[in-house]
Amino acid sequence: MGQKPITFLRQVISLCVNPDLLNNESFPADARERARRILQGCKGGSLGSYSDSVGVEVIRKDIAAYIERRDGFPSDPDNIFLSTGASDAIKNMVKLMVRGSGRDQTGVMIPIPQYPLYSAVTAELNAVQVNYYLDEDNNWALDIAELERSVKEARQHCTPRVLCVINPGNPTGQVLSKENVREIIKFAAREHLFLMADEVYQDNIYAEGCAFHSFKKTMMELGPEYSTLELASFHSTSKGYMGECGFRGGYMEVINMDPQVKLQLKKLVSTKLCPPVSGQATMDCVVNPPQPGEPSYESFIKEKTAVLKSLAERAKLVAETFNSIEGVTCNTVQGAMYAFPRIALPQRAVEKAKSLGQAPDGFYALQLLEQAGICVVPGSGFGQREGTYHFRTTILPQPDKLKIFMDAFTAFHNKFMKEYAD
Amino acid sequence: MGQKPITFLRQVISLCVNPDLLNNESFPADARERARRILQGCKGGSLGSYSDSVGVEVIRKDIAAYIERRDGFPSDPDNIFLSTGASDAIKNMVKLMVRGSGRDQTGVMIPIPQYPLYSAVTAELNAVQVNYYLDEDNNWALDIAELERSVKEARQHCTPRVLCVINPGNPTGQVLSKENVREIIKFAAREHLFLMADEVYQDNIYAEGCAFHSFKKTMMELGPEYSTLELASFHSTSKGYMGECGFRGGYMEVINMDPQVKLQLKKLVSTKLCPPVSGQATMDCVVNPPQPGEPSYESFIKEKTAVLKSLAERAKLVAETFNSIEGVTCNTVQGAMYAFPRIALPQRAVEKAKSLGQAPDGFYALQLLEQAGICVVPGSGFGQREGTYHFRTTILPQPDKLKIFMDAFTAFHNKFMKEYAD
Repeated sequence: MGQKPITFLRQVISLCVNPDLLNNESFPADARERARRILQGCKGGSLGSYSDSVGVEVIRKDIAAYIERRDGFPSDPDNIFLSTGASDAIKNMVKLMVRGSGRDQTGVMIPIPQYPLYSAVTAELNAVQVNYYLDEDNNWALDIAELERSVKEARQHCTPRVLCVINPGNPTGQVLSKENVREIIKFAAREHLFLMADEVYQDNIYAEGCAFHSFKKTMMELGPEYSTLELASFHSTSKGYMGECGFRGGYMEVINMDPQVKLQLKKLVSTKLCPPVSGQATMDCVVNPPQPGEPSYESFIKEKTAVLKSLAERAKLVAETFNSIEGVTCNTVQGAMYAFPRIALPQRAVEKAKSLGQAPDGFYALQLLEQAGICVVPGSGFGQREGTYHFRTTILPQPDKLKIFMDAFTAFHNKFMKEYAD
Repeated sequence: MGQKPITFLRQVISLCVNPDLLNNESFPADARERARRILQGCKGGSLGSYSDSVGVEVIRKDIAAYIERRDGFPSDPDNIFLSTGASDAIKNMVKLMVRGSGRDQTGVMIPIPQYPLYSAVTAELNAVQVNYYLDEDNNWALDIAELERSVKEARQHCTPRVLCVINPGNPTGQVLSKENVREIIKFAAREHLFLMADEVYQDNIYAEGCAFHSFKKTMMELGPEYSTLELASFHSTSKGYMGECGFRGGYMEVINMDPQVKLQLKKLVSTKLCPPVSGQATMDCVVNPPQPGEPSYESFIKEKTAVLKSLAERAKLVAETFNSIEGVTCNTVQGAMYAFPRIALPQRAVEKAKSLGQAPDGFYALQLLEQAGICVVPGSGFGQREGTYHFRTTILPQPDKLKIFMDAFTAFHNKFMKEYAD
């Protein structure tokens, strides 16, 4: 994701790939120990063998231990399913929930704006997409009244069975408060919805006063009335401070799932044999980084802190710059890796776009690409309230590039607004 | 797959994972050059970045070049789709072919016995499984008359649109003759079927007089009447002499596909972002091994030859041993990695199995596991002609272990046959 890889991770994975290096003392002892441990869990002691379809057992144990440390509640390795990135697990989970036709057809509630995987998977699996709108005026908060409106309307024509929540938000960058997470859980319980918590940005929290509150922990804290709810939580190697998306590592923790359904889930994932074992090993490094006292600890913490500090600075810089431009407003980027600014397109620009058969924000984005060489994704790809226009951009470019981007963007935008002024 | 990894491959991948090693001269120059070249094709010069959804361009070019060398006909990198192992590509391709209901519902023709991915995918995607039987009495040959019977009967209740062929066969280990491949192509053309050629065992040919004839090459040689047929061919890092299944590398070449359909295929694969880039790099090593004159060439050829020679010996050993046992018959293992012997189960064993609610070959396999600690897959998992019983076993254990296995198997089998003698 455009940042320097964490050295420890790359050392461990290269050792796992090429065990001839395991006795090479130019690698730190903890990296070699970690690689040995992972390889002992792999069939034939090799990343090149198939693993169990649910993933390597020792890695599932490490993930469960990570979740226990994070939440303070038990996690059962048998509830952990490794996956090919989080997308694969999300798709499998939606697949499991889809049934019926007509008014019995499964409705999947997704936030608008949303990460387009959700709309694509819903369409592909022939489920009904049920939109609930995030509150832009309130820093993209998730309003329970809006969830209630949405589920009520959906019940007229389908059967909502799944509630997807992305926290921290993609593309919207908000971080849910503890109270908000609690309310969402109570709503899901009231409405008998299976909760899918996309928590892949759990390590990407920047704004002061914000913290990550996992759905699992919050649910457990709510006590017996809620702690038996069915929930799947997704995580990934692609985000956080490691950002190793190319290895396609991910997992889901599935809580309180009916054993018969879980058996079907295991059958479903087994048709594709196993997730990439190199991605599984990468996931292990994410959940099991160097500990105090280990030789790599200090340099690891230095790299981790630098990445997260820089991301936080960029999150602030991007939002502030957007807000300093006339006709652009941007909520605080509290977490994740994106800004989703709103652009006040002049009526003449909207009409010009329509005359070209383009969405107004698509037209704006294309002009931005052609005139300034800047690539952003139009808001219509994520969904937005009718009559509002946005785009998504990442906060990932390094600060020097980000400055160039921001200057070029400002120049383009001002010119565009002048050209199409009402 | 239970064999020692090819050194060159593991060197290249570890260098790709950990570019800090690129100047380490204990790695051969060609491995370092190969890793540099792959990384230059990766975004941000890193395996940790997403690639294009269809795969890294330089790797697609290497694959196309490999196919051109293999077949002597042009291959367009734009027709190459990297995938998460071959299974992923096969599933996507079937998905693209499925439509309709009732008599218009897509029928997918698959061999019996088959690799169970096909039946699972057909069921999951709500297509109709159309069986054609391989001819056990003729070393599992693919008989065109049987294809004709099968398609004709299927047309009574569905619309066959896809013909899947596995060559070399899994679990049956036969290798199709050139003439047979030609006849199959002509049949697919006559019946307007999309040909899916599962060619993942193309490097695993053992029996004398057998050779791999790709569907692409054979189709091209047949001239303009056939060279415009639609075809998808699948390959993988999991088989061959490298056997790196844990990296989940694979690709398909899609030939003569309608551009509008290809666009949908690209859209379909993009929902999961990209195949694991480490698996893509592994695929590159498979199609682009050390060349004569390069420093790793000699040791590579030595390793490759040793693996293939040993597999060929084991293929022979396994079939011969099975045939030396009363009540077991086994066709020549011409290719792939499996033997699929037939067992003449006594009527009393069949009845015993039925009284336990088990399939007769499942009962036999369970007894084998419990009494001798040997795990095989019952033939009913692959499909077999009614009233015949088989199991699948691999030829992958090292020769010393294979000898122990064969002795233990023989002892079990003789005891079993005595116990249930009619």
